[in-house]
Amino acid sequence: MKEIACWFDFASNYSYLSVLRLARQKEVAVQWKPFLLGPIFKEQGWDNSPFVLQKDKGDYVWQDMPRECAKYGLPWRQPSEFPRRSLLAARVALLGEHQPWMAEFCARTMLANFEHDEDIGSEAVIATILTGIGLDAAALLTAAQSDDNKVRLRARGEEARSLHIFGAPTFFVGPDMYWGNDRLTDALARATG
Amino acid sequence: MKEIACWFDFASNYSYLSVLRLARQKEVAVQWKPFLLGPIFKEQGWDNSPFVLQKDKGDYVWQDMPRECAKYGLPWRQPSEFPRRSLLAARVALLGEHQPWMAEFCARTMLANFEHDEDIGSEAVIATILTGIGLDAAALLTAAQSDDNKVRLRARGEEARSLHIFGAPTFFVGPDMYWGNDRLTDALARATG
Repeated sequence: MKEIACWFDFASNYSYLSVLRLARQKEVAVQWKPFLLGPIFKEQGWDNSPFVLQKDKGDYVWQDMPRECAKYGLPWRQPSEFPRRSLLAARVALLGEHQPWMAEFCARTMLANFEHDEDIGSEAVIATILTGIGLDAAALLTAAQSDDNKVRLRARGEEARSLHIFGAPTFFVGPDMYWGNDRLTDALARATG
Repeated sequence: MKEIACWFDFASNYSYLSVLRLARQKEVAVQWKPFLLGPIFKEQGWDNSPFVLQKDKGDYVWQDMPRECAKYGLPWRQPSEFPRRSLLAARVALLGEHQPWMAEFCARTMLANFEHDEDIGSEAVIATILTGIGLDAAALLTAAQSDDNKVRLRARGEEARSLHIFGAPTFFVGPDMYWGNDRLTDALARATG
């Protein structure tokens, strides 16, 4: 089976595009790699998203997103809060990485943030998503916030650094790195070629 | 006639891709807008290209460029010096903006930097390019470095800031901004659509 690894952050608007595109295709198996961009940005000396710190770039991104969403047939509403706290969603996603519900959870959580303008940092929003997929929300939220799982997410961040990841989404096909939703088509072509 | 404005810096590797793509097409009229990224980056507090300041991103870019050049059928050699001094080339290009030789000068200067690994900051290299197109290199180099022309390049930089340009290449189709070679196809579609 052809494989692609997708490193993404639920707070990242360009990750939203890629997660939805990958969740809707069946040709390539996806290794989902939820992680947090925050610590990566901190290493650059940034205490927030570059789309917040660099005002002109940030303003541009909100012009770019509706066009990109139209291109890929995806819904779009600019979140009233950006970037949203993605820690809880990432912890839940870690539990789902090898579960059949992973793609659905990722897609619904991204849509909550970028279509429905919901606070994905809240337990209530994540619980509603989990319940909507037919999962035991209470049990998963408890497991997500266990010490073991917190350690796993920190290890994921160290793995990201060891791979020299500097942004999201980032894809790997074997050793080859592709950065940004704009490279997803190339990465998929590499995976299937 | 359909029009696109192309803001670019001769030192910028992603500008190289777009300048060559635009120079080779005839469907859309190009308003060439040579400018310098340096002052834009300085306003961000950066004293060099982000591809130098952010090591992981910079390393990635040199993996990305050969793949991108292959995609567009363009030659590629990683410059032994990056970013190169693009001040002289920008000053000469300002003189050519509305001349029939502009596209050819831009393409040849970009190829000098990114195919032939030549120092486009040197008068000798720029003179050879100008002579190769059949132009009076000595006269153009003198005019390029006149006080009037220096003032014009500074005004171009102020125009870039007033348009909230934060990187290169940047395209405008009417009021709509498109950033990066990855958006050139979209910008051209907008110009012809």
